Amino acid sequence: MKQRVVSGMRPTGKLHVGHYHGVLENWIKLQDEYECFFFVADWHSLTTEYADTASIRNNISEMVLDWVAFGLDPEKSVVFRQSLVPHHSELNLILSMITPVSWLERNPTYKEMLDNIEARDLSTFGFLGYPVLMAADIILYKATRVPVGHDQLPHLEITREIARRFNHLYGPVFPEPEALLTETPKLLGLDGRKMSKSYGNSIYLSDSAEETERKIKGMVTDPARIRRSDAGDPDVCVAFNLHRIYLPQETLDEIVPACRNASIGCVDCKKILTAGMNERLAPFRAQRQELAAKPEFIGDVLSLGSRQASGISDTVMVEVREALTI
Amino acid sequence: MKQRVVSGMRPTGKLHVGHYHGVLENWIKLQDEYECFFFVADWHSLTTEYADTASIRNNISEMVLDWVAFGLDPEKSVVFRQSLVPHHSELNLILSMITPVSWLERNPTYKEMLDNIEARDLSTFGFLGYPVLMAADIILYKATRVPVGHDQLPHLEITREIARRFNHLYGPVFPEPEALLTETPKLLGLDGRKMSKSYGNSIYLSDSAEETERKIKGMVTDPARIRRSDAGDPDVCVAFNLHRIYLPQETLDEIVPACRNASIGCVDCKKILTAGMNERLAPFRAQRQELAAKPEFIGDVLSLGSRQASGISDTVMVEVREALTI
Repeated sequence: MKQRVVSGMRPTGKLHVGHYHGVLENWIKLQDEYECFFFVADWHSLTTEYADTASIRNNISEMVLDWVAFGLDPEKSVVFRQSLVPHHSELNLILSMITPVSWLERNPTYKEMLDNIEARDLSTFGFLGYPVLMAADIILYKATRVPVGHDQLPHLEITREIARRFNHLYGPVFPEPEALLTETPKLLGLDGRKMSKSYGNSIYLSDSAEETERKIKGMVTDPARIRRSDAGDPDVCVAFNLHRIYLPQETLDEIVPACRNASIGCVDCKKILTAGMNERLAPFRAQRQELAAKPEFIGDVLSLGSRQASGISDTVMVEVREALTI
Repeated sequence: MKQRVVSGMRPTGKLHVGHYHGVLENWIKLQDEYECFFFVADWHSLTTEYADTASIRNNISEMVLDWVAFGLDPEKSVVFRQSLVPHHSELNLILSMITPVSWLERNPTYKEMLDNIEARDLSTFGFLGYPVLMAADIILYKATRVPVGHDQLPHLEITREIARRFNHLYGPVFPEPEALLTETPKLLGLDGRKMSKSYGNSIYLSDSAEETERKIKGMVTDPARIRRSDAGDPDVCVAFNLHRIYLPQETLDEIVPACRNASIGCVDCKKILTAGMNERLAPFRAQRQELAAKPEFIGDVLSLGSRQASGISDTVMVEVREALTI
């Protein structure tokens, strides 16, 4: 039997290429090898964005359009919306009863975010409890594998501890999900900082070829290469973090020495990048436009997927209630 | 339009006469004047009893048998089980996102129970959050009145604060429920301590006439009245806290002086109490036996009531989601 994978993404809107190479591309690969459940984590948005929910619906549509256009296949995977499956909140409530507050207080991400984020209020009960909700999201489908980066291992460890505690108290219902470690380098944005929506330095999957060209034109390269005649260093060139992804090795093998001996300038070098990037993204972008033109499409995908997910979570919740004798 | 009342009871099993005169009798009165929702708070049991759930189902049946036999009328009131209405956990999750942890940490009952109860583990996230669940239980039905004693006013205040915060953030959805203050003296048990299941000092609504007689025979009276010829003091007599409830004023007017001048002994005085108590409880007890003989009865009451409750909470949750734009 195939291993079962569960993974979710908060609905932050249109995805940028950093999201794609960091998470989505991996999801798309996983769906051939695993039985996959991918969900829009809209309850999780509320843990940090409860004061500004106006854009959630639109963010969901934009994100799921990217998912499907770029290759997430609702015929292969269960693609759904967390808040449309009532069992997420129900299992969350049950698991909250067996989770010590101390496990949540010592969660490293919790402490780090409380210390570092001042623009939003994170002092809520829901934010403290998000690892419990995350545990519910995962074990509700009896997931056996969860794709995570190194930085998310502590969360998965809380999930495993909660599953273990449930099984210890009420009998063996849940597998302890294991990490599918996926290390992906963080992409740099136009200004050389990590690519992030909030920095305004992103190239979106849904950008047009022209927008992509314009953004790349304004991108930082090697800050020490001031004149065309200066030699450059691809290893410190911000644009070059995209070259590596979007251009074939033989092109890179030409560009690197040409940059180092100043025989190619940044303007031309960026033209090569733009062409490669647009070529690679073009078919997906066309697909996205086609899907976006069908107003019912995303709603239909999510409601069908949420019904499929509910069917499965329903049988798990019957087991949970039996185990709890409630 | 009638005011709407919501109130719940944790399923602790068979009710004793202290429960009856403290809570149930009041509920039964309320159902003629208000639109009432009375629920079995089975999720709440898990906040303190997660480690021992084996008796929950039986406790629910025994308690609801008492409710209905003693006059709670499923035709007049919506009588249901919390865990059968999925919106309780859903609204709980939403409200958790807007409730500051500090509101929960400063809840006086929370601090008191953490300090005083050592036999059970109360350090869980669910126990910390029970006032949020309580708020969800109440505002899910847009209750306008909540029957509470003075000691529960801080909980109701948290509910009101949470409702206010929701309305402030997302628009006016919830009324702020007001207290229906119901002060009822705590009944004393057989040993003179507060009547409580855990002290083993209770007379149950479902006790037979013979059990009632036997328990009253063993009940503490005025500890200073050692011999039959000693004068007694009804004001300090433990049994007399039941006389006051179960005997008519004219009988009390005879007993009180007779006790004070030792013209009546405790044995005879208890016989009068036993007769009065059994007479008053007899019709309800007969009714209870009749209902208990129908194995489907309680399940049917609760599933019908839970469907009614779901129908109403469903329309409220549609408003909640609209307000949240989720």
